[in-house]
Amino acid sequence: MSASSRFDVLTIGNAIVDVIAPIEDDFLVAQALTKGSMRLIDTDEAERLYGLMAAGVEISGGCAGNTAAGAASFGARTAFIGKVADDHLGHVFRHDIGAAGVHFATAPLVGGAPTARSMILVSPDGERTMNTFLGACQHLTSADIDRDVVAAASIIYLEGYLWDPPEAKIAFRHAADAAHVAGRQVAMTLSDSFCVDRYREEFLDLLRSGAVDIVFANESEAKALYETADFDTAVAALRQDARLAAVTLGARGSLVVTREETWQVGVSPVEQLVDTTGAGDLYAAGFLAGLSRGQPLADCAELGGIAAGEIITHYGARPQVSLAGLARQNGFTI
Amino acid sequence: MSASSRFDVLTIGNAIVDVIAPIEDDFLVAQALTKGSMRLIDTDEAERLYGLMAAGVEISGGCAGNTAAGAASFGARTAFIGKVADDHLGHVFRHDIGAAGVHFATAPLVGGAPTARSMILVSPDGERTMNTFLGACQHLTSADIDRDVVAAASIIYLEGYLWDPPEAKIAFRHAADAAHVAGRQVAMTLSDSFCVDRYREEFLDLLRSGAVDIVFANESEAKALYETADFDTAVAALRQDARLAAVTLGARGSLVVTREETWQVGVSPVEQLVDTTGAGDLYAAGFLAGLSRGQPLADCAELGGIAAGEIITHYGARPQVSLAGLARQNGFTI
Repeated sequence: MSASSRFDVLTIGNAIVDVIAPIEDDFLVAQALTKGSMRLIDTDEAERLYGLMAAGVEISGGCAGNTAAGAASFGARTAFIGKVADDHLGHVFRHDIGAAGVHFATAPLVGGAPTARSMILVSPDGERTMNTFLGACQHLTSADIDRDVVAAASIIYLEGYLWDPPEAKIAFRHAADAAHVAGRQVAMTLSDSFCVDRYREEFLDLLRSGAVDIVFANESEAKALYETADFDTAVAALRQDARLAAVTLGARGSLVVTREETWQVGVSPVEQLVDTTGAGDLYAAGFLAGLSRGQPLADCAELGGIAAGEIITHYGARPQVSLAGLARQNGFTI
Repeated sequence: MSASSRFDVLTIGNAIVDVIAPIEDDFLVAQALTKGSMRLIDTDEAERLYGLMAAGVEISGGCAGNTAAGAASFGARTAFIGKVADDHLGHVFRHDIGAAGVHFATAPLVGGAPTARSMILVSPDGERTMNTFLGACQHLTSADIDRDVVAAASIIYLEGYLWDPPEAKIAFRHAADAAHVAGRQVAMTLSDSFCVDRYREEFLDLLRSGAVDIVFANESEAKALYETADFDTAVAALRQDARLAAVTLGARGSLVVTREETWQVGVSPVEQLVDTTGAGDLYAAGFLAGLSRGQPLADCAELGGIAAGEIITHYGARPQVSLAGLARQNGFTI
């Protein structure tokens, strides 16, 4: 039972500015970093690694922020909740998400840690390895969850990374409760396989208890969740635990499952792969934009693929063209 | 009479971080901005304009800084002098120019204005309109001109924009004097036609008095310097006033003139023009890298064209590939 909505999609996550720079293949080996992973780092390690990085580009990022910006680019009415500091990077984050057309009213942290940044090392094949300093994100609390905004959104979308800052985890549950009280749908992304390893039991509990209705994952996250090397086993388990799951498969598109049904949806190849940062975030953006407008699930998956296909052709995880325009070029009326 | 050099090229200029975002054609009309110009703005206007801009990308910039990074990418031993603040953007600028392989030891400004930033509005045709908040650049003084570094560089290169901050103008003359005392060559860029309009008599005096040996300009700057609509008239005058002049002609390449000789050098067309920011800066980088290694002037111009051709295919005015590698692909042994 839900009232009319003011927002199609509300996303909640760590508010992060990305610092993106290319690396050679041997850099990861020398630094003992796992390609494709996200790790949390402290101030000292942030300074040390930054000193070793090539000249970079700074662009607003953060998974849920990227998803919000992407959904807005599809024309969805979108809001974001996340914690920045009252500093230069916080100002940049706030500007950029506002310029993307996303409602963002979370009060900044004053006098505490600086705005979060993620140093993203991009390998020659476009894969990225993330080193995230959480800073102000550590201070997102339940007090930042505006229940009116939550209740006003058709779907809320939360990132698994919110489990890293202890208070944000409580805020996550608080937001999910508020959404269900208002008769809304709750979606989450598993974020990355290392995040799943850290919080497996809690994530499974979120799904099995019904605190989360819709789950987004990639192959390795789905396998990590069920500690299996077999993808089909993971999908079969996911089908039981989640009302709706969308699993991205890289260049092979995505798989969407409910208890009874399965859709395998392909994607068009991209001309030039530059940087896969944000591919999953933008898939969720397209999927949620479609879902909030009542599109069939296979179309939602296709919209996700269109958005992901745009984001991997350039540095940065925010779209550089109108995704609504791209969708129209592909025959959608969204 | 010059001793052996520690640096091939030393550039001195405003240390600026670029904030780059796309605009539609009508934005410039609505804001009464002149397409292709650079204007100086104060804090209030910087805030106002930033509020109207689309989401952007932050990349270290500044003309002389771009030229230094470009020359280093050609393998030239390069140094930079410019003033940043002890803040986040200053940290980014220092990191990026160091990561490019450029020696940069100017002390940061402490407790004063923040690091300079230029809001660069990129039109659909790739042309850029710059709105620069000078901040800490206003405080570059003669005390920042390390005479040992100046004396150790084969060529020093200064930007006309240094005429905007009053103390930097004095620092410019100080550096040129120190270079000549050490038997080095002094180059300058006219920076932009509006800058030429502001300081025409002083720029002419720099050339005619011999304070500057080599001048870089584009067509409109050359015409502005001599207040003529006729390019040939401007070139004829420039030939008399400068020992060596290199005038960029956009897609038609460049024209290099000495008192007695003229070289017209073409460039290869680029596949995709994205953003012309830094084309002139990178032309100077290639030209100076060649000149410092004793290459023939026509080859210097060709190296300039190679560097400019790379920079206009992406956002940001710092090279994304090795320019030495590009030069080798084009048959140079630099």
